[in-house]
Amino acid sequence: MALTNAYPLAKKTLEKPQTLVEVNGIKIGGNDLAIIAGPCAVESEEQLYAIANFLANKGIKIMRGGAYKPRTSPYSFQGLMEDGLKLLRGVSQKYDMAIITEVLDLSLLDTIYPYTDIIQIGARNMKNYHFLKELGKTDKPVMLKRGMDATLEEWLLAAEYILMGGNQQVILCERGIRTFDNTSRNTMDIAAIPLIKQLSHLPIIADPSQATGNREIVGPLSLAAVAAGADGLMIEVHNNPEKALSDGPQSLRFEQFSDLLDKLNLLGNMNGKKIPELHLKTQFN
Amino acid sequence: MALTNAYPLAKKTLEKPQTLVEVNGIKIGGNDLAIIAGPCAVESEEQLYAIANFLANKGIKIMRGGAYKPRTSPYSFQGLMEDGLKLLRGVSQKYDMAIITEVLDLSLLDTIYPYTDIIQIGARNMKNYHFLKELGKTDKPVMLKRGMDATLEEWLLAAEYILMGGNQQVILCERGIRTFDNTSRNTMDIAAIPLIKQLSHLPIIADPSQATGNREIVGPLSLAAVAAGADGLMIEVHNNPEKALSDGPQSLRFEQFSDLLDKLNLLGNMNGKKIPELHLKTQFN
Amino acid sequence: MALTNAYPLAKKTLEKPQTLVEVNGIKIGGNDLAIIAGPCAVESEEQLYAIANFLANKGIKIMRGGAYKPRTSPYSFQGLMEDGLKLLRGVSQKYDMAIITEVLDLSLLDTIYPYTDIIQIGARNMKNYHFLKELGKTDKPVMLKRGMDATLEEWLLAAEYILMGGNQQVILCERGIRTFDNTSRNTMDIAAIPLIKQLSHLPIIADPSQATGNREIVGPLSLAAVAAGADGLMIEVHNNPEKALSDGPQSLRFEQFSDLLDKLNLLGNMNGKKIPELHLKTQFN
Amino acid sequence: MALTNAYPLAKKTLEKPQTLVEVNGIKIGGNDLAIIAGPCAVESEEQLYAIANFLANKGIKIMRGGAYKPRTSPYSFQGLMEDGLKLLRGVSQKYDMAIITEVLDLSLLDTIYPYTDIIQIGARNMKNYHFLKELGKTDKPVMLKRGMDATLEEWLLAAEYILMGGNQQVILCERGIRTFDNTSRNTMDIAAIPLIKQLSHLPIIADPSQATGNREIVGPLSLAAVAAGADGLMIEVHNNPEKALSDGPQSLRFEQFSDLLDKLNLLGNMNGKKIPELHLKTQFN
Repeated sequence: MALTNAYPLAKKTLEKPQTLVEVNGIKIGGNDLAIIAGPCAVESEEQLYAIANFLANKGIKIMRGGAYKPRTSPYSFQGLMEDGLKLLRGVSQKYDMAIITEVLDLSLLDTIYPYTDIIQIGARNMKNYHFLKELGKTDKPVMLKRGMDATLEEWLLAAEYILMGGNQQVILCERGIRTFDNTSRNTMDIAAIPLIKQLSHLPIIADPSQATGNREIVGPLSLAAVAAGADGLMIEVHNNPEKALSDGPQSLRFEQFSDLLDKLNLLGNMNGKKIPELHLKTQFN
Repeated sequence: MALTNAYPLAKKTLEKPQTLVEVNGIKIGGNDLAIIAGPCAVESEEQLYAIANFLANKGIKIMRGGAYKPRTSPYSFQGLMEDGLKLLRGVSQKYDMAIITEVLDLSLLDTIYPYTDIIQIGARNMKNYHFLKELGKTDKPVMLKRGMDATLEEWLLAAEYILMGGNQQVILCERGIRTFDNTSRNTMDIAAIPLIKQLSHLPIIADPSQATGNREIVGPLSLAAVAAGADGLMIEVHNNPEKALSDGPQSLRFEQFSDLLDKLNLLGNMNGKKIPELHLKTQFN
Repeated sequence: MALTNAYPLAKKTLEKPQTLVEVNGIKIGGNDLAIIAGPCAVESEEQLYAIANFLANKGIKIMRGGAYKPRTSPYSFQGLMEDGLKLLRGVSQKYDMAIITEVLDLSLLDTIYPYTDIIQIGARNMKNYHFLKELGKTDKPVMLKRGMDATLEEWLLAAEYILMGGNQQVILCERGIRTFDNTSRNTMDIAAIPLIKQLSHLPIIADPSQATGNREIVGPLSLAAVAAGADGLMIEVHNNPEKALSDGPQSLRFEQFSDLLDKLNLLGNMNGKKIPELHLKTQFN
Repeated sequence: MALTNAYPLAKKTLEKPQTLVEVNGIKIGGNDLAIIAGPCAVESEEQLYAIANFLANKGIKIMRGGAYKPRTSPYSFQGLMEDGLKLLRGVSQKYDMAIITEVLDLSLLDTIYPYTDIIQIGARNMKNYHFLKELGKTDKPVMLKRGMDATLEEWLLAAEYILMGGNQQVILCERGIRTFDNTSRNTMDIAAIPLIKQLSHLPIIADPSQATGNREIVGPLSLAAVAAGADGLMIEVHNNPEKALSDGPQSLRFEQFSDLLDKLNLLGNMNGKKIPELHLKTQFN
């Protein structure tokens, strides 16, 4: 695939080979390997603080947590909404972690904006062009997940909608596409990572939790994504996955996450992409 | 696939075997074959009135036309927006045709609401659950297109979000799914029509224009959809497809549309689903 | 999609607009609607004769039945093999029906050849080019099913392999492709029928039984395929589907098949494609 | 996905956690990282010896090369056939490399058998169950590529057909599946590697060349596959990719292959899976 002129703002050029998006001291797109971790959904104060305390001890600087959840069924848990946002604010202040949370709809942007450091746009919204245009006018980083049915060109054109509005802080996130094989929840398109690196200057991270839906596979997919050149990972971690209100089966247990960090650090020694301030081999608490 | 309890409101039951949605005298879901036709996008007064005049003469009672267009590239024509809505209002009054137009985003609903008789939700918004919840509070029919990556169960659960809010006038529209074969723009899932008829009481129509992207194939797919049990069709028609600002290659020419109506009427004699007030074999004008 | 020069022998041209393949008096590709019916697998003398007797009474001239079955699991019923072929020969003689049966492998061709009137190549073999080349040297019609993962161009190129060898009697059969939606066994690509009609002079039939895997959907898909222009249908019928050794859930019961024939005949009155010698509304026996 | 009883012979158990297949001193499935390399097709004596000389100098012990090529078009280069086999024999003897070459059809097995050390079964033949049964009776290792449309369960059931016949030396090879996104030739299903490791005792390698079709992406996908746990890689290498008769765009140049080996060795230091006898940083010749 040749470089194209379809997306002049997202395209990699000699003049613009790489965009850095800096969040809480982490340079996403540079030599830092950005690790974003946390629960799928904010469920309670107890749950969120237990997870935040663990992650902060491991040196994690950006925490994920959904307050408004897009659920296939209207009868599933829909998130704590504003109460969830307030809890995220709390852990952000206590543990000095930046927050990333999903904005499900443009009408919720004003509500969520003050509580989040990165605006997460889910796979289901990747083609909501009206929403993307409005995001171009904001001044916070936007993490744009790939739609389950989106080609790479469609994804870069979606980023172009945001860039056109003036916001240059766009992070792409590969989270799996939909294919005939339902063994996994989705199929991680590992080739998307080096292809995006060829085509665009935007940083790209991977979400192995969404991609596989199976915690036993999250580790290998994380290592694979970083080996393929990803600028970071977004990983679901839960203090009690069996009781999680959403996505329990794909959430790592604490000890699994600790082990994965150790392996990622070894990999970082090899490819020069390191986890900043990582507390290696610290006591599991 | 057995009937499930996942979507109690959308599910077909002995008590609720079929919902009728009545629009401008057409009973969608009953013995009427609903034909919705018009251009992909409203482009100009001249274009819209030429098409409307033709369609009204053929007995068409519901006209489609996009005023806000979801385009993959931000550099493509995005629609006439409010000017387009006003033009739609004009033809609606002059030709006594109901209007269906797409609402791209919840934030545009108040603007578009007074101008449309059916609220069209595009494939890209099928999983925008926050938006769907709000649509449940409106009192106009909603046409919910199937997402390009949506299973039948996900589609019915999306309808459930609307039904839960109190709006019972939901029309489903099969418009093709995304598969490996790019010969056509999408792959029309013809089996979805009889399967939805088994699973749900909601009416289902087909959009062969979006499904194929090729006007030479729109006729055969229309006949196939009706033979398979569809309650209606949504078809793109243009007075000058070569100059269309969007989707020209899939828009029928006037004479193709006339021929198709004649064939659909013959098919209706067979399966009891007729086009109401059809002006058959009328002079082409 | 423009006509291409990739497959000069399969391509539709002014000089070669349509190939007719004549089998037992049925002109496949002409004004006859070819109905091929029978069980998925030959299971026993009793089963095969019960089905053959019924089909012959309905005027069916070509019977299907698998003697060697390609099964996903090695622990599933693999077919009666040569005993099955002999049973097929018996019904062919008694009821004057032509036989179509699958050849799983080139090494089985000599064994099966004397017993079959049409050589069936299954979806799993559509890309076995060595086998296709050898089929080009035979003098019996070949029915080439579309691979579950084959584009239209790949399918026509597979036909080209046979045509190159000198055998011009190739019938294409759309039997569904593999997509993300597992509601049905496969997804029938209804648009393939008119597209193949545009691109190639070869006749094309549809196999709604394989496509859906659900007998309740076979009828609507059959009508849809014929409405879209198919030259025929291949339909699984069984005298006792609940006890079938393979594909029971997708096999029509006798009365369902009779009803379908009546509807297909009405459709034939409309589009000029008729079932030859059909015994309409005959007593169900 | 739970361990199933559908494929008792291929299933991983406490008693049979891992099969080792030993070829030319390389233990595939153990601590060795097996690197199989060579051209897509054998084209000429000059080409094959140039590549073989380079690979032998890099310590490669297993060489690939197609003598019979499965080509989508009958008008493409079909391979040198027996002449190609003889050339493979020559390099095998001169450079002490084992040979892997594809057997397109059961009828070619006797011809190819004496020339190859591993029998390669291509993606197009993964569901040719008759062929697989016969392979179960051979006494050479079989490399079974995943079909482009095969689920993991279907793949393991295909392996079961071989294992049932008595041949226990089966190596699985992930080479990409077919999805909607045509940016790459296929989509490498990276999760298949750890999932197969959970489900089965059979070794699994990856073919990044087939998966992507783009030599610039082969390196990152190779690293990803090994990071995810692959037991080896099969990589296309060519002395002059621009002039290759097949798959030139996905063939690595010599210097790219050398660089990749160095990176794989670093990765091996991390995960304990090493390339045996690797000549690191040797002079490029």
